[in-house]
Amino acid sequence: MDDPVLLTGAGGRVGQAILDGIGEEYDWRLLDREPISAAKVPDRVTDADQYVADITDERAVREAVTGVNAVVHLAGDPRKTAPWDSVLRNNIDGTQVVMRAAAEAGVEKFAFASSNHAVGGYETDDRTPDLYRPDDDYRLDGEELPRPGNLYGVSKATGEFLGRYYHDETGMSVVCVRIGNLTKDHPPREYERGQAMWLSHGDCAHLFDRCLLAEYGFEIVYGISDNDRKYYSIDRAREVLGYDPQDNSANYTFEGDPIAEGPPTDEP
Amino acid sequence: MDDPVLLTGAGGRVGQAILDGIGEEYDWRLLDREPISAAKVPDRVTDADQYVADITDERAVREAVTGVNAVVHLAGDPRKTAPWDSVLRNNIDGTQVVMRAAAEAGVEKFAFASSNHAVGGYETDDRTPDLYRPDDDYRLDGEELPRPGNLYGVSKATGEFLGRYYHDETGMSVVCVRIGNLTKDHPPREYERGQAMWLSHGDCAHLFDRCLLAEYGFEIVYGISDNDRKYYSIDRAREVLGYDPQDNSANYTFEGDPIAEGPPTDEP
Repeated sequence: MDDPVLLTGAGGRVGQAILDGIGEEYDWRLLDREPISAAKVPDRVTDADQYVADITDERAVREAVTGVNAVVHLAGDPRKTAPWDSVLRNNIDGTQVVMRAAAEAGVEKFAFASSNHAVGGYETDDRTPDLYRPDDDYRLDGEELPRPGNLYGVSKATGEFLGRYYHDETGMSVVCVRIGNLTKDHPPREYERGQAMWLSHGDCAHLFDRCLLAEYGFEIVYGISDNDRKYYSIDRAREVLGYDPQDNSANYTFEGDPIAEGPPTDEP
Repeated sequence: MDDPVLLTGAGGRVGQAILDGIGEEYDWRLLDREPISAAKVPDRVTDADQYVADITDERAVREAVTGVNAVVHLAGDPRKTAPWDSVLRNNIDGTQVVMRAAAEAGVEKFAFASSNHAVGGYETDDRTPDLYRPDDDYRLDGEELPRPGNLYGVSKATGEFLGRYYHDETGMSVVCVRIGNLTKDHPPREYERGQAMWLSHGDCAHLFDRCLLAEYGFEIVYGISDNDRKYYSIDRAREVLGYDPQDNSANYTFEGDPIAEGPPTDEP
């Protein structure tokens, strides 16, 4: 891919997982509200390709999307406990600014970091903790209505339907990835929910790589590894995006140590 | 019902349809951004029960919901062409303010005026105009994902999932009514889409009456009359709310004149 790819929120955890995995594969433009420390920037990204701007700054965002082929939009308040005023501004208004600018600039593919919290309300008292266990058949597949577990989740659901709107309006391909629990090296310890929705760094980078390479219209997919404990289906991500996850939280003991099969795939 | 019912946006078109029909049935508190002319206020509503406030004014909204049993929330920018900044503030932020205040005040029932525009994107070129015709079987039933036709529709979808969240969090009953095309006296003329989603004033008042009387948890229903031309199902509204619409746009000639069976039911 010759045209640049804009990565918003590049200095955050998901951004770093992506850059660790596929930082050398694309001509990235990195945007973040704060300058990103040089150690976290891929070698091939020049200073001219780094934008320090708030995503609610329409002019800065328009400049950043000009000439890019694709956008991976991660920027926003990442806290599940974020207060309304923050998610209203950073996640809802910010996503609208980025999506509109991308659509108007003729961007072909737009990957939006949605969240498991957009559907956290399905984890009802009568379903948990069974839901988090390998022998439970309950699955969310992305066709279900949003059911946010918090106001952060409301903001992510709104981003998804902004994406639906801009796809319908302009034909821009939009994929919303409901990211699970991203942790480095190993799944969360003693946290069944986190193990059920674990997304390894390696699988995260691979999944967004597929979002940049595959052909699709509008999609909502779950971003988790191929965990035995899962209640999110990854069938759609496999079918449409060609997602082929390599990790599984069951390959780690409850103490969080890698078992004999080998180290986590996101380690060198 | 003895406890008051708060009606936001009381001076607007939907508010007036409701008050025309059931203005004498409840102890209303009326809230609007502008003073409502006396002729549009039911006789039994005193000056003390009229609030002039913007719904983004948290303090004013908290005062207005104190002691009410139910809220009918209509206030917002009603224009399908409303720009983002307006729907962000008036429809998204405003609805969050009203819903949160209601949930915190222990309101039992909350009826939210959503819109057909939350799903306007389903009216694709290959489905229309067949969709609007009596012999077409395509139906939306409220289980489908939002597919907004404009940014106003995005804001209405967001209100629905704010309602889902507050219902899950607090147990407040929330019903989202995707209002069709509300016109007085007769359906829109020479406008198939409007005839398909016509909601008469009489059926509108009756539907919101049912929202105040029925028992439910969280619901998304379509607010249209029992039109022969329909692509919104009203089954859920019938089953859960006991909605029993009396009007049908097919009972009017294309010229908009009542046919021999009688005058529109919302006329005296």
